[in-house]
Formats: sequence, C-alpha cells, structure tokens
Amino acid sequence: MADQVPSHKLASGYTMPLIGFGIWKVPRETCAEQVYNAIKLGYRQIDGAWDYQNSKEAGEGVRRAISEGIVKREDLFITSKLWNNYHKREHAFEMAKLELEAWGIGYFDLFLIHFPISLEFIPFDQLRWPCFWTDKEQTKVTPLAKVPISETWKALEDMVQTPENPDGFVRSIGVSNFHSQLIYDVLSYAKIPVSVLQIEHHPYLTQLGLIKVAQENNIAVTGYSSFGPQSFIELNNKDAVSAKPLFEVDVVKSIAEKHGKTPSQVLLRWSTQRNITVIPKSNNVDRLKQNLESATFNLSDEEIKQISALNQGLRFNDPDSFGFRIFA
Amino acid sequence: MADQVPSHKLASGYTMPLIGFGIWKVPRETCAEQVYNAIKLGYRQIDGAWDYQNSKEAGEGVRRAISEGIVKREDLFITSKLWNNYHKREHAFEMAKLELEAWGIGYFDLFLIHFPISLEFIPFDQLRWPCFWTDKEQTKVTPLAKVPISETWKALEDMVQTPENPDGFVRSIGVSNFHSQLIYDVLSYAKIPVSVLQIEHHPYLTQLGLIKVAQENNIAVTGYSSFGPQSFIELNNKDAVSAKPLFEVDVVKSIAEKHGKTPSQVLLRWSTQRNITVIPKSNNVDRLKQNLESATFNLSDEEIKQISALNQGLRFNDPDSFGFRIFA
Repeated sequence: MADQVPSHKLASGYTMPLIGFGIWKVPRETCAEQVYNAIKLGYRQIDGAWDYQNSKEAGEGVRRAISEGIVKREDLFITSKLWNNYHKREHAFEMAKLELEAWGIGYFDLFLIHFPISLEFIPFDQLRWPCFWTDKEQTKVTPLAKVPISETWKALEDMVQTPENPDGFVRSIGVSNFHSQLIYDVLSYAKIPVSVLQIEHHPYLTQLGLIKVAQENNIAVTGYSSFGPQSFIELNNKDAVSAKPLFEVDVVKSIAEKHGKTPSQVLLRWSTQRNITVIPKSNNVDRLKQNLESATFNLSDEEIKQISALNQGLRFNDPDSFGFRIFA
Repeated sequence: MADQVPSHKLASGYTMPLIGFGIWKVPRETCAEQVYNAIKLGYRQIDGAWDYQNSKEAGEGVRRAISEGIVKREDLFITSKLWNNYHKREHAFEMAKLELEAWGIGYFDLFLIHFPISLEFIPFDQLRWPCFWTDKEQTKVTPLAKVPISETWKALEDMVQTPENPDGFVRSIGVSNFHSQLIYDVLSYAKIPVSVLQIEHHPYLTQLGLIKVAQENNIAVTGYSSFGPQSFIELNNKDAVSAKPLFEVDVVKSIAEKHGKTPSQVLLRWSTQRNITVIPKSNNVDRLKQNLESATFNLSDEEIKQISALNQGLRFNDPDSFGFRIFA
C-alpha cells in the first residue's frame, strides 16, 4: 500500500512520502503499537517531535517493524523537531542527541526548528509538561531567550551528515511555523538548503501566499492539522469547539460523495494534490488505511478552489494565549 | 499649535511627536513648500524615505523654516528609511549618507529599515523609478539579494551617535513593515534598542497582535496610511478603489458627529490615543491643521473598539504583486 503514496524530492536530494503518520498527542502507552501498526499498514513517514514526549515509544514501534523485516530503516522517513528551550547551539545538539537516542534509529531523515521563537533553557532533568511554554501549573510563562534564529539554523546545518561532516546524524533540515519574512531571512544565510516548511494547514487556514513563498524557493510544505478544528477539540480550544467540523461542511461532503470518498480523504487530497505533505493521526485502523489511500483519486481544479474558498484565516495552534504572538 | 501634539518617549531616550507630516507621494515640485508650511503650522515630525525621492526638496523646506527662525533643528524629529537595494553594510552607509546630504540637516532623528527584504544592489547612478521593486517598465522584478537582516541592523546600529561612536549621524533606529517573528529575532541580537516599528495601520487593518508585540517590547508604533484606501486610490490599487472610503463608514461618521470632529480626526485619534504615531499627508492647509489638532479630544474605549471592529485584514501596501510575499 506504500506504493499508493506519492513522494516528493526535497532540496536536500532525499525523498519524502507525501502522506505520513503524525504522532502529536499519541499517548505513550499506545505509541509503540500505533507506530508499528502504521508501518505495517504501509506508512513510511513518521512525524514526531521532542515536544510530543513519545519518541522513545515511537522508536520502539519503528524498531519492532524493522526487526520483523517489514521495512528497512532506509525505507522510512522519520522527522523530529527542536523545541523552543534548546535554540542555543550546545542545547540544540544535546537535545537532538537525546532525542535520537530515544528513537534509537541511527539518524533523522528530517529535523526541524519547531517554532520561530527562543525560550529560556530548561535543564534536561527539569522537563515540564505541557509544552514548556509555561511552568507546569501554567501560572508562569517561560521567558524569551536571546538566541538568534541564525545560531539555531547553523546548529541544524552542523547536524547534517555530509562527506565533510561524517558525524552528522540528520539528512534534511527545515523549519516549522515560520512566516515568510523569517523564511526570506533564513534563505539569505542558509548554506544547506531549507528542505521543508511545516505549518498548520486546512481549509479554514489555507495560507496560500506562504505556501507560494515556500514552493517558489524549493521548500517542500508539510501541513499539520489537515482536519482543522478536529485535533484541537480534545485540548478544549475554544475556537475549535465553536468551529463547524470540516467533515460536516457541505462543500467537503458533496465533493466526497461525488468521488465516493470520505470527507477526510478529500481534505487530505486537497493538500497532497498541491504537493503538500500531510501527517494525519488516527487510532483507528480503517481510518489509517483510508488516509493512506487518499492519494488514489484526483480533485478537479474547481473542487480544489471551492475547498480553498473556505479559508477564514482561522488558526488553532497559536501560543498567543501565553503572550507569544508569533503569528502577528 | 505644536503644544497640542502629545509625544512619546522612545527606547533610545529621545522623544517623538505622535503626529507628523508624511511626505510619501508629495511631488518634488511642491515638497519644499509643503514641508515649510507644515512646520509653520506646527508640525514637528517629518516622515520621509529614500524611496519617496523628494528628500532634497523636503530638506530645503526644513532649512528654510530653520533659517527663518520658526524652529531650531533640535525641535524637529526627522525620519528617513533605508531602501531594499541597499541592505549590505557598505551600501547602507552609502545610501544613508547620500540621503542625509540630500536633506542637509546634520543628523536623522530616526532611521528605519523600510522593508524586511533585501534586493539586488542597484548602483547609485542607475536609480530607477518607481520603487525599485522592478525595472522602470515593471517587466523585470529585481532579484532577491542574500543579505541577512542582522547585517543590515548592525549597519544601522553603527550609524547611531554614541560617546563611543561620535561620527554617528542617527539618533534612534527601527524597522518598518516587519512582522512579529522577525521582530523577535532582531530583539535577540539588537545591541541598540529597536525604537520604532512603522506599519500600515487603519481600521481595515488593525494589526492588534503586532502592535502588542511592539508595545510589550518598548517599541513605539507608527501607523502609516491612517485613512486606509484613501492613499492608494491615486495608485490605481484595485482593493483601494473597491473599498468603502473610511470617511463614509457609518461608525466613523457618527462618532465624528458626536464629538463635533471630522472623520479624519477620529481616524487619527483612534491611533494616537493608543500611543500610535500618525503621519498623515495633506496638500490642504485646513486639513493639515485639522490633522494636527486631532489629539485635542478623547474617544471612549467603546468607540475605539467599534472602530477597531471594522478590521478586515485588508492591506493595501503589499509588494505581493511583484512576487515579494512578505506579509504571508
């Protein structure tokens, strides 16, 4: 079934499948099993992050699939991300190596700067959940740290394995949640290409201009939260709770019916058909299959436009509530 | 009448009047006279830029007012801006010095990076109008240049006069048209404070989050195009032509009537009351007076909210049409 998933050649020269399994909010208890099952079903890309706190378990799932001969390491495309508290060069390396050790997979296919903001270092033995935007009780916001993005980007470049840097442990690098001005700036000093931009992307937040900036500059786009509010309801996100579920929007439903597909398949195809990678999560085997099979039909240009017209600039993943106004 | 204009203390320690005279699109032929008249009327801030191509004439107006004893140089607050083609350190200095020579005023009170994007250098003897985003015929877009914003910012810092840098010719520095991510980044490496952020700002584009980012970080905000579409109609900007003029919007008109003020005074007060500097332009002496007197009454919080509710995220000054998607 992995054959049904188109892929995309990155600026680095490596290839990324256009459909992956994203493990944000996959509980530790089930993560190894879910990752293993996803690979067994045909998923070849796993999208993780330090922030998700389930890398060790995800790595167990990956290693089980490899040891059972279902895939080889080189068949997989595994992403992780540098968290905001570790933007300083030495912390970036320390975090990346701890993260790689947790996964136990030799190297990362892709390593991203998770957010374009640097927060005060938190020693690795004092990790706090959730998210480290604030303290555990969410009473104290973590202060900003004065680390330029250029320092962090240079650290990522020095993680990339090249003939000159055989100790590198990363194949491709990129950024997440960056806007165009900062992307233009990174492009002005990057010595190793920015291969990927990962952003929130669904019909309520189409970001067409930002996607153009990326694609014009040979940066592949990965969209997260393809189903819009869906992912954020369990977080009690007010905007998500009050938004109409995308699965119930008439345009999406009628296009799905016309093609004999599910609304979720339509939402995913709306992205992949424009070369935007998707990384949906599901706990349900049938839906995992449906998602993986979502690139086996084509929407018309008109249908893509109709879905894009649902745009409201409605962003769900925004640390604005903690005072970090990175999308302003 | 200058007494009626409140002022704002910048991070640099200098003081900026909250109402100024902006000379974008003031024709060379009348610029000296208009600037002179504005100063005579009581304006103490003049907002110019290399890009406006009228600095020599503006300087003539300023020097006439000084030579006639209407003001002293130190009573005035004069701004200019670094254009996109001159972001490299040596070009920034060359342009800034040519610009200062054109004004003939000894020093700039404020010097800003005009846009957060670096374009290929255009030799100073090959200047092209309009705007240098493209060639003269607008058939060829000027290519991007690989100059990090950090290099340009450092150049501006080195223009600032300090005890250690007595040759400096600038008092305060800042940025224009920057979004929050790039502002956070500049703040991470700035050694001299970012005193001002200048942005498009009117009730159709309120940018409340961005203004919070600036004001939380002690960056004073200047809003340009306070009357929204008005400034862009003469440029045949389609969005501006089709937008309802802000002077005719019911909320604005009724608040104006209630206070016995003009709609333009209400629009300006909506900004200055929130500590946002305005730099309206007018060719008409009565309107110049009205604008300068616009801070002599107060809107209620509710009225400010009603005006802010007109926000549509409608931006008129966007080089997107040339392929520079800096606001995505």
